[in-house]
Amino acid sequence: MSVRIGCLQVETRPDDVDANLATLRDMMKAAAKQGVELLIVPEMFVTGYNTERRPENYPQSLWLDVARDICREEGVALVAGAPEVVRGDDGRAEVFNSAFLIDSTGEVLSVYRKTHLFGDEEKALFSPGEVAGNPVMFRGISIGILICYDVEFPENVRRYAMQGVDLIAVPTAQMVPFEFVAETMIPTRAWENQCYVAYVNHDGVERGLRYVGRSSICGPNGDRIVTCVHGTHLLVADIDPLVVVDGRRKNPYLLDRRPELY
Amino acid sequence: MSVRIGCLQVETRPDDVDANLATLRDMMKAAAKQGVELLIVPEMFVTGYNTERRPENYPQSLWLDVARDICREEGVALVAGAPEVVRGDDGRAEVFNSAFLIDSTGEVLSVYRKTHLFGDEEKALFSPGEVAGNPVMFRGISIGILICYDVEFPENVRRYAMQGVDLIAVPTAQMVPFEFVAETMIPTRAWENQCYVAYVNHDGVERGLRYVGRSSICGPNGDRIVTCVHGTHLLVADIDPLVVVDGRRKNPYLLDRRPELY
Repeated sequence: MSVRIGCLQVETRPDDVDANLATLRDMMKAAAKQGVELLIVPEMFVTGYNTERRPENYPQSLWLDVARDICREEGVALVAGAPEVVRGDDGRAEVFNSAFLIDSTGEVLSVYRKTHLFGDEEKALFSPGEVAGNPVMFRGISIGILICYDVEFPENVRRYAMQGVDLIAVPTAQMVPFEFVAETMIPTRAWENQCYVAYVNHDGVERGLRYVGRSSICGPNGDRIVTCVHGTHLLVADIDPLVVVDGRRKNPYLLDRRPELY
Repeated sequence: MSVRIGCLQVETRPDDVDANLATLRDMMKAAAKQGVELLIVPEMFVTGYNTERRPENYPQSLWLDVARDICREEGVALVAGAPEVVRGDDGRAEVFNSAFLIDSTGEVLSVYRKTHLFGDEEKALFSPGEVAGNPVMFRGISIGILICYDVEFPENVRRYAMQGVDLIAVPTAQMVPFEFVAETMIPTRAWENQCYVAYVNHDGVERGLRYVGRSSICGPNGDRIVTCVHGTHLLVADIDPLVVVDGRRKNPYLLDRRPELY
């Protein structure tokens, strides 16, 4: 029993939600044809990451129902990076950098809010999530979502691993000069926790911000099962919980930890 | 103000302490000629790692004074992996897998006991260290010692980093098929904590155990400053605390941590 996932590396169009949703529809169709059950797209895919307009201008009403329809029509679940705009009673908007997990029936299963904001720019645009993520069960596999900078902290991945996750799904927006993270750190996160890691990046240039591409799906033995450098790519791999179990038997890091010493 | 370190990758002779001490003397001389101030040698270098006789047969009296003399004569400090035999009042020996830091004056500055024993074999031979390591100051740089499997736990390196270490010194005995650790995980440990990591392995085959070699000195930006694959190598690099400070300014992982979420 495994689950087939797809990861879409693509050049998004900043501030053009309709164009990005059209891309999503096309790629969900392509994913369905390959038997993909869950598609993961980059951080802030819906609006673009480096937008001209502030993220509070993009409430969920502009895109969430369309995305849910696409999931239902194609019968494919989705992890979509997007701003999450929450209006308080005073009308003031609070905005999180979030990832929405939508089932193939169109139901929103979970919304994860990025807890570790990157740099002064993100800290000016977003409120940090105040709750560590909880694993979500999807067709028999346990998925933990992190967003970009979150996964660079070994603590976040370890916390999920201690709850037995099979897959860490990471929408990201990784720019130069951070190739190291995509190429070296991501396989390490997979190995040291013996789980799959799907690292899904933008490509191209968004208003001067140049992305490193280099999306990958890494396996519990640190292999980059499928990866790329630049360009649009739909990376596909099967997530098999028994491979995770076998990895944790061979490399019993989780059992050999000595938390009393840390 | 930087400190020049050397890392000796070498094929040790199991159960032949005199031969290994002779190698040590030769290589300390070579290191001194290159201006090395601190030489790091592999895990259990003094006796060999995969010995025929049990480690309690190798008390410090067989080697420690000789090693201290070599340090004094060559004016070079040493991190030496060796068994540490402690006899209780009842005469029973307790043995730790330890690393002795000896100053260039011959003074033993610290003894670190491996806290994370690897596999059933090590657990049968050694007692685990019950104290997490404390950084040691050496000529203005702060050094944290870990032994082999210890460094594979991100928690151990993070703990040192939170105390500001500049260099993690890791005597190791890394065998096939664990090339991944040497090639991918070690640079990640350096990057994610923005410190130097010196990973010092055996080479060759010891009574059927085949080592991966692949020692390296990695810098705070994840670069493998100097590395090798197989063979005897004296790797040399300068450890500069200001490079560590600059790395932590550029990648403020330690400041951006949110321990309340882990």
